[in-house]
Amino acid sequence: MKAVRIYAYGGQDQLTVEDAPVPQPGDNDVLVRVVATSVNPVDWKIREGYLKEMLPYHFPIILGWDVSGVVESVGKAVTQFKPGDAVYSRPDILRAGTYAEYISIDANEVAFKPATISHSSAASLPLAGITAWDVLIKAAGIKNGDRVLIHAASGGVGSLAVQLAKARGAYVIATTSAKNSALVKSLGADEIIDYRTQSFEKMVTDVDIVFDSLGGEIQQKSWQVLKPNGILVSIVNPPSVEQAAAHNARSAFVFIKPDAAVLKELATLVDAGKIRPIIGAEFALSDIAKAQALSESGRAVGKIVVHVGNP
Amino acid sequence: MKAVRIYAYGGQDQLTVEDAPVPQPGDNDVLVRVVATSVNPVDWKIREGYLKEMLPYHFPIILGWDVSGVVESVGKAVTQFKPGDAVYSRPDILRAGTYAEYISIDANEVAFKPATISHSSAASLPLAGITAWDVLIKAAGIKNGDRVLIHAASGGVGSLAVQLAKARGAYVIATTSAKNSALVKSLGADEIIDYRTQSFEKMVTDVDIVFDSLGGEIQQKSWQVLKPNGILVSIVNPPSVEQAAAHNARSAFVFIKPDAAVLKELATLVDAGKIRPIIGAEFALSDIAKAQALSESGRAVGKIVVHVGNP
Repeated sequence: MKAVRIYAYGGQDQLTVEDAPVPQPGDNDVLVRVVATSVNPVDWKIREGYLKEMLPYHFPIILGWDVSGVVESVGKAVTQFKPGDAVYSRPDILRAGTYAEYISIDANEVAFKPATISHSSAASLPLAGITAWDVLIKAAGIKNGDRVLIHAASGGVGSLAVQLAKARGAYVIATTSAKNSALVKSLGADEIIDYRTQSFEKMVTDVDIVFDSLGGEIQQKSWQVLKPNGILVSIVNPPSVEQAAAHNARSAFVFIKPDAAVLKELATLVDAGKIRPIIGAEFALSDIAKAQALSESGRAVGKIVVHVGNP
Repeated sequence: MKAVRIYAYGGQDQLTVEDAPVPQPGDNDVLVRVVATSVNPVDWKIREGYLKEMLPYHFPIILGWDVSGVVESVGKAVTQFKPGDAVYSRPDILRAGTYAEYISIDANEVAFKPATISHSSAASLPLAGITAWDVLIKAAGIKNGDRVLIHAASGGVGSLAVQLAKARGAYVIATTSAKNSALVKSLGADEIIDYRTQSFEKMVTDVDIVFDSLGGEIQQKSWQVLKPNGILVSIVNPPSVEQAAAHNARSAFVFIKPDAAVLKELATLVDAGKIRPIIGAEFALSDIAKAQALSESGRAVGKIVVHVGNP
């Protein structure tokens, strides 16, 4: 099968488009023929070697952890899926990834694809959608009427987080650039802050939940907007426990795992029109280096989808 | 290039996947590399020969009149597009169609693709979207507060018509089957009628606009639900002028033309979250016969997308 592998940690030139063996599904696995995948920052963070202490890989590695596709075959212990089913997944990051024509995934990490959107759109959802869910619902316990500050709201995770927070009845304050403010408004944000010309920390107060997808200075400035007992949840830099205590606030750090139950919830929200995936760019698998370059630039709107096979 | 052509009118077995010459763009044309197309009933109506009196073709014919793709080159008189632009179109039905890797289209029939959705989703919009627009806005002059009856609301045209009518402030009564009622509700319909178990003509009155995509008996029964001076607009059977007069109503028949201005309006609505394309099934170009068979069955939900090339 066609796949993209890396033989060493390094730059985009490590991404090698080549033939690789089709994975052999185990008894509990589903072999999925990949129609589309999408790029997440974790893809190039792994490629650069930033996570090599955490993640014990053997080269060559197939990157990519988002997939929408069609079940090709199932292991003998698998009863919930059959060949031909349209499915999507954020698979185990320690196994071979989704930059490939086929991937073998534990059936417990697979869910039925949302019925009303294309594979391209479905491939944009799993990792970013589970992340938004884990931050807002599991870590922060978002509830009706909460004031939520979402940084980088036009990005892949941010664009879903705004919609999920609105679906849960929250009041959403979103930071983005002026050129994306109309899009973010259309996702349901109640207030938009242009991060290039305005200082959110001087404009926002009494926040219940800060969704931090940027870390660094933005995370530091975010403590002061929180209500007493508010929570800052980061997906990039673990927040300091000392700072949280000094601000009479709580904090959490989220690093997501595969979660088919959340994928099922997300599919229901998509099919009910509560969440629409935002696709900002699309590439062929052979152009994966360009797709990763766009992700690394931080300038992509919504998600970057990579087309792999026909549906 | 790979293309699907027919050499005679007839069944699905006429659909021949083969090599064909890349079209030569004229001075006012844009050559588009096709990423995705979608199936419309007109495709198989032409294939069957139902429209042969109206449409003077020479065989072989490349079918298909919806496209989302990337500009490959432009004719020397074209200034509004350049190679690399992401575009979508419902091209001239008398030229070679979109079941192919490349299509040459008059630049005046082309618009920029909505920025926030995938090519697969964008390819589902042009023909069905222009149809919904021409019926509701151009033919019926829909206005805020109008009561609109939309038949077959879970279909490719109906699912867009419901959303467009709601975006214009109408009250929408939609017929569909029980299994698709949740979807149609999610599109914004105010009332749902299960056409299998309920008789719409006994339940609905005082309608300003009937959107008829079924013709026949449904069209006949639709006259009686109209308000005085209400309008029945059909996209399948020209309504009888005598019947309209007998019911003190108006009627119109819509057969759409390419319309880049409407495509621009639709792109704005999509990017603003007012319209979401509903994709019910996806096929590879080599499976075009299966895609047309599903369309002919009348059982597809939303649109049937066909993936042609990489983005």
